[in-house]
Amino acid sequence: MRTLIATLSLLAATTPAAALAQNARPSQTATSPDGSLVLTVSTDNDQRPTWSLSRKGKLLIAPSKLGFLMADRVGLQRGFAIEGAEKASADSQWELPWGERRFVRDRHNEMLVRFRQHESWGGHALNVRFRLFDDGIGFRYELPEQAGLKTAKIIDEVTEFDIAAPGTAWWITAGEWNRYEQIYQKTPIDAVATAHTPMTMRLDDGTHLAFHEAALVDYSGMWLKRAEGRLFRSTLSPSSRGPRVIRELPFNTPWRTIRITDDAAGLVESDLELNLNEPNKLGDVSWVKPMKYIGIWWGMIRGDWSWAEGPNHGATTARTKQYIDFAAKHGFGGVLVEGWNKGWESNWFGHGDAYSFTEAYPDFDLKAVTDHARKKGVTLIGHHETGGNIAVYEAQLEDAMKLYGDLGVQAVKTGYVADAGGIIAPGDAPGETRMEWHDGQRQVQHHLKVVETAAKYKVAVNPHEPVKDTGLRRTYPNWVAREGARGMEYNSWSAFANGGPDHEPTLVYTRMLSGPMDYTPGVLSLVGGEGRPHASTLAKQLGLYLAIYSPIQMAADFIENLEAHPRELEFIKVVPADWADSRLIAGEVGDYAIFARKDRNSADWYVGGVNDGTERTLTLGFDFLDAGKTYTATIYKDGEGATYLTEARHKIAYETIKVKKGDSYKLWLAPGGGAAIRLHPGK
Amino acid sequence: MRTLIATLSLLAATTPAAALAQNARPSQTATSPDGSLVLTVSTDNDQRPTWSLSRKGKLLIAPSKLGFLMADRVGLQRGFAIEGAEKASADSQWELPWGERRFVRDRHNEMLVRFRQHESWGGHALNVRFRLFDDGIGFRYELPEQAGLKTAKIIDEVTEFDIAAPGTAWWITAGEWNRYEQIYQKTPIDAVATAHTPMTMRLDDGTHLAFHEAALVDYSGMWLKRAEGRLFRSTLSPSSRGPRVIRELPFNTPWRTIRITDDAAGLVESDLELNLNEPNKLGDVSWVKPMKYIGIWWGMIRGDWSWAEGPNHGATTARTKQYIDFAAKHGFGGVLVEGWNKGWESNWFGHGDAYSFTEAYPDFDLKAVTDHARKKGVTLIGHHETGGNIAVYEAQLEDAMKLYGDLGVQAVKTGYVADAGGIIAPGDAPGETRMEWHDGQRQVQHHLKVVETAAKYKVAVNPHEPVKDTGLRRTYPNWVAREGARGMEYNSWSAFANGGPDHEPTLVYTRMLSGPMDYTPGVLSLVGGEGRPHASTLAKQLGLYLAIYSPIQMAADFIENLEAHPRELEFIKVVPADWADSRLIAGEVGDYAIFARKDRNSADWYVGGVNDGTERTLTLGFDFLDAGKTYTATIYKDGEGATYLTEARHKIAYETIKVKKGDSYKLWLAPGGGAAIRLHPGK
Repeated sequence: MRTLIATLSLLAATTPAAALAQNARPSQTATSPDGSLVLTVSTDNDQRPTWSLSRKGKLLIAPSKLGFLMADRVGLQRGFAIEGAEKASADSQWELPWGERRFVRDRHNEMLVRFRQHESWGGHALNVRFRLFDDGIGFRYELPEQAGLKTAKIIDEVTEFDIAAPGTAWWITAGEWNRYEQIYQKTPIDAVATAHTPMTMRLDDGTHLAFHEAALVDYSGMWLKRAEGRLFRSTLSPSSRGPRVIRELPFNTPWRTIRITDDAAGLVESDLELNLNEPNKLGDVSWVKPMKYIGIWWGMIRGDWSWAEGPNHGATTARTKQYIDFAAKHGFGGVLVEGWNKGWESNWFGHGDAYSFTEAYPDFDLKAVTDHARKKGVTLIGHHETGGNIAVYEAQLEDAMKLYGDLGVQAVKTGYVADAGGIIAPGDAPGETRMEWHDGQRQVQHHLKVVETAAKYKVAVNPHEPVKDTGLRRTYPNWVAREGARGMEYNSWSAFANGGPDHEPTLVYTRMLSGPMDYTPGVLSLVGGEGRPHASTLAKQLGLYLAIYSPIQMAADFIENLEAHPRELEFIKVVPADWADSRLIAGEVGDYAIFARKDRNSADWYVGGVNDGTERTLTLGFDFLDAGKTYTATIYKDGEGATYLTEARHKIAYETIKVKKGDSYKLWLAPGGGAAIRLHPGK
Repeated sequence: MRTLIATLSLLAATTPAAALAQNARPSQTATSPDGSLVLTVSTDNDQRPTWSLSRKGKLLIAPSKLGFLMADRVGLQRGFAIEGAEKASADSQWELPWGERRFVRDRHNEMLVRFRQHESWGGHALNVRFRLFDDGIGFRYELPEQAGLKTAKIIDEVTEFDIAAPGTAWWITAGEWNRYEQIYQKTPIDAVATAHTPMTMRLDDGTHLAFHEAALVDYSGMWLKRAEGRLFRSTLSPSSRGPRVIRELPFNTPWRTIRITDDAAGLVESDLELNLNEPNKLGDVSWVKPMKYIGIWWGMIRGDWSWAEGPNHGATTARTKQYIDFAAKHGFGGVLVEGWNKGWESNWFGHGDAYSFTEAYPDFDLKAVTDHARKKGVTLIGHHETGGNIAVYEAQLEDAMKLYGDLGVQAVKTGYVADAGGIIAPGDAPGETRMEWHDGQRQVQHHLKVVETAAKYKVAVNPHEPVKDTGLRRTYPNWVAREGARGMEYNSWSAFANGGPDHEPTLVYTRMLSGPMDYTPGVLSLVGGEGRPHASTLAKQLGLYLAIYSPIQMAADFIENLEAHPRELEFIKVVPADWADSRLIAGEVGDYAIFARKDRNSADWYVGGVNDGTERTLTLGFDFLDAGKTYTATIYKDGEGATYLTEARHKIAYETIKVKKGDSYKLWLAPGGGAAIRLHPGK
């Protein structure tokens, strides 16, 4: 036996639920500012709240349910009527202290729909706020203060997205051992399993979609689980406590978002999630400094050096000073040092019990190196690997951040190397632990705690094995970057472990939609551990600085290898990590991506990006340049015959030409290739 | 940063984990009795326990991980070594008190593999017991008593099944609003989302697989979540408590099973899960009586009568006596009466607060009808709809079952009409409730409590909106049937709501692999509510008695409609609900299914089954008949021009012929058709 539909027809109109249905307000609708998106909010035959969306007159999201499963009461799913709706509009501009662009326009229409559940179903009030932009939609649940529901114990959120038309999806599996660090899959939409967001789709009619969320605060990360066909339903990252989210009322959920555009460039250039985040809460953040950096790291990743103390210890005082000197000489802002602190001897992966975040190994003189760095105008980039043990880390957090603040360390890379479900959080009693997820409510709370504590000491944060980015850098601009995808390091562990050359042109349209990534480009040697080749040409290593944005951008290779490529090093030295504007001037999801980006601190433009495994020739138009100026274009491109497949990956060509607005340039991209161009007005 | 593989290579062989790897015993292998299946159990580079399986020299399950995520400690996933393995074999035969066949052969090889986790990962002991049959495999985890782990708080079980070859899958989505009551989907294996079991597959090479579990006791039901490609991973039905399973050690999990056969018949005829269940715990179960039954039910489903008291109340004393008289006249063993008890007035779907399971409505004299039934040699089939509220039901359970036992009620149909996650269980404090799943640990405990309580009073149980069947009828033979799939009733609510005629020939190879289903065939009028037509011919209604087994088999239509079809009623009267043997003599998954079944109480054979929407002609061979006997075959088959699509669905043809072993018979099956044949030795 099954549903209320049947039940209702049998019990007839004398039941409260049927009476409720008769009293329900009709559907509510709203449109995007340009009218292209039309939202309809309604209730179905079971009095379930539903939403649907059409674009340019075509159904895009078929009626999809909204609601929650609760741990201690019948779910907030059925028996709802619309009590009312309120509308608003906004058109404003705001400024990013650093980023892909300086100014962001926020133009949207808003509709708040107030649902009320019939008494026999709990009588709960549930509001849903929708914001419609021309390039997408966001909505969030708002649970107002109300009698009878003080604490929401949410077992799961069951928000549906029923995609009305077929197409292709790019996605990674949620809930995996390996967190977000998987090769992206490209499948039909109806072959997705359970995906992390952002999940990107191209419908057969060319419409581009990217599903994600904004402002993930004190809540669990949303996964999208395909139920059947093209129907997706949210499921929240798990918790050891049963309810995946526990919150006191009133509260709002994160925004559930879809970027919706005609093409790949529209997806990449959208600021939808940033617009749905709260403004900067930190005030003056001039101490957050975009920079490029080098580090004592690639040697450990390659297996030449060790994190732990010993004969091959990477983080020695001497080597750190050597790196600081190199950084100062070449204008790098920072030097990352991993393995400087005590605790790496033990089985740290997924454990982290032994870590001290304030005590250095004897062969690493923290005071001496930070003094040396300060003198040289360079910052140390600190490092806090936790092994996923936030119980140990949180106990030391204040002291650890204060230490860095006192020493003038401007940024810290944190790490949470543990399996999915392997975050070790403090339990309810001393000595007890609770296992949590990298994107569960507890770890979401943890990340913000780290960011806020760091901000007190003017330290920027770059977490690895993080929670995904949901635009919180707008609110907390010291949250500068993160990992959260398969990074360069995999190339060191096995040949072409990054899924070959398709990986980066896929990241641009998936992971990178969420925000900056510490991908660590600049392995100019193109060699990983035990001589393993990278699936990249040399020019692609430069193109990565344009394709994959981070305000703290690494040059990952050994400094000896950087120095061995003086012309490439010259490009890495000048390419900015902070932009006035960014545009995708050529690209398709998973195939290639060429950006034009304008320096925030000069009149220079930079153009460049990455290719997949298929060689191609593009005609780049320089329409974006300022009229009336002539630019000197310094071009780094794949040399003739270059290919990622052989030693010809090292073949690079250089060219210097003059260009002006309206000119075009024919660019050949090698298999696994890339390109980088500096455009400087005048000579 | 990522995995232990990398970490280990960097930390080198001085680490405990690496030392452990060097000490690990090599892989363990075992084979099925006929040698066709070869199992390999090992550990991978992360010291994760793995298993793989090949069949006839071909890889079937690629190396797949084993393990658990825990709520209060690092998971039982990594850092394991094999301590040892023990082998055993068995070949025995046992008897089913009722069922599809009388004798079951249990022939298997067994291997118990003992894993031990390195101290730095917890030091836990984890055993896995494998049983290899010629037609499949089962394995379960066994957690022995051990220091340091008294209570297992299992957040999830992460057992993998990496299917090595492509094929087609038949499946329903797990975790849905509608529990198990969905239309089966047929997709490529790599387009499955998260599936309930049984999930059936046909690989491109013709190998048939069915994934399921056996002996689900005090644990949560297993769902199979596709991670990517053809890699599936178990996920357990949720719990409001966080850990999806909480168990004191020592304990064993249910068996994870795969039937593996050359053809569809092999799948259907396998007794794999029954063999993995414990023997009968109830002793003499002669009081469990296979029967056919009618009921005061279809009238409510159609909307003609009401469950609640009122002018159209179904369950009146007078109507019940009328039904008892009809049952007695035609040899039906039971009469189901729904809506006899107080509490249906309120919003019972997903609530159930108002139900009394001992108090009848004033117009239903329970004592009078049970007296009347006893006099007529018929049993009342009781009814306990809970609306999913097991807090209310469990409080009355003992009294309710005692009442039925005292009155001679031999069976009860229970019901749990609520959304997924909508089971209302008692909380930790009085007045508190916890929401649970239909197949979560708490509800699994509940079902067994109901079955055991019922057994005390010699009552058989037939739950609707149940947990899936995992073969527990072997251990508790009073657990006679259940719903757990979309049943006949959907035809009443909207036209062809059962997914059209493909539904039943899909059920045979999916849901029915788990055990008996109370599908409620026999709607001879072929008409649901408001005149809605069924996607079935008249002959198919008879074929269902052969295709979909239950020891309590309903004739669901109004008795007036049964009487209006005297020849069909005659078949329903004679067809057994208890068999000596059952064979699929023709069929393909999702297309058609024709069974030959031998009566347990006579020398009669019955042949029949169901077709999908495509007409077809089969040549049935009577090889199964006893040699030297001549049988009178009474044939009910689709009439010329019959089709489920029009009023021609009522066209039926009758034929009587003589047949003997070795004869064959050409049978035409209409679109949406079926057939039924009684084979009686002599005249």
